[in-house]
Amino acid sequence: MLGKLYPAEDCSAARALELVGERWTLLILRDALFKHHTRFSQFQHSLAIAPNILTKRLADLVDNGILEVRAGDRPSQREYVITEKGATLKPVIIALTNWGDRWVRPGPAVFRHADCGTELETRHVCPHCEVAVEPTSIQARPRRDYRAR
Amino acid sequence: MLGKLYPAEDCSAARALELVGERWTLLILRDALFKHHTRFSQFQHSLAIAPNILTKRLADLVDNGILEVRAGDRPSQREYVITEKGATLKPVIIALTNWGDRWVRPGPAVFRHADCGTELETRHVCPHCEVAVEPTSIQARPRRDYRAR
Repeated sequence: MLGKLYPAEDCSAARALELVGERWTLLILRDALFKHHTRFSQFQHSLAIAPNILTKRLADLVDNGILEVRAGDRPSQREYVITEKGATLKPVIIALTNWGDRWVRPGPAVFRHADCGTELETRHVCPHCEVAVEPTSIQARPRRDYRAR
Repeated sequence: MLGKLYPAEDCSAARALELVGERWTLLILRDALFKHHTRFSQFQHSLAIAPNILTKRLADLVDNGILEVRAGDRPSQREYVITEKGATLKPVIIALTNWGDRWVRPGPAVFRHADCGTELETRHVCPHCEVAVEPTSIQARPRRDYRAR
């Protein structure tokens, strides 16, 4: 398990960062989600990460239910397979990539619809007004019936 | 400036993490974006972060054009105001929050449309098929005309 990095915070973004905010972790997940890497050697080759760090990060992701270990083709081989909990991190990586594409420079990859190959757009949609809402019109408000733990 | 945390990576998500991936940075931006905090004392009170770390993180965010410094009401007071580059990080924080709400537990805040107060939905939309695309149908593909630096 990762430690409580932000112990005073009662916030879902803070809790998410405790599970995926360590250095390298989101790039490991990027490779698992979008390059379909499953083996230690694939992650290491792709990321040029120190083996001891990669070992620790993969173990933490398994402990947190974001990756799961399966037996590989050879008896000694392990496959690190993304779980549903991990698969739903795609929007985080897409949001980071879109921001870097715009404000740093366009990167080598774009996100496309598997069925037709068209580049996707991320929208924050208001189901009541049936419009895509610009970031300036998004507010954080208290959750009704929320109880702190 | 933050260092090159992921020097071998040619990827917009990696470049984004170099600018906002340090511990505390996304939570400082969450407070700037959604709690409208602008003063050192507000961030420190909200985050219970060591002053030397907060000073460094704010300076890095200013250097990277994500916050800008303005004179406050009193001569000695500084205000840290979010730039457009910073404002467009809202989708990253929303994506992290949505994931934490689902997989850790529902947090204290929800994201609502400022005009009507309805809770927003994040969708990845295919402009060709005119459908919201599930994460499992999103693929990363090479950008056309991309040239590595």
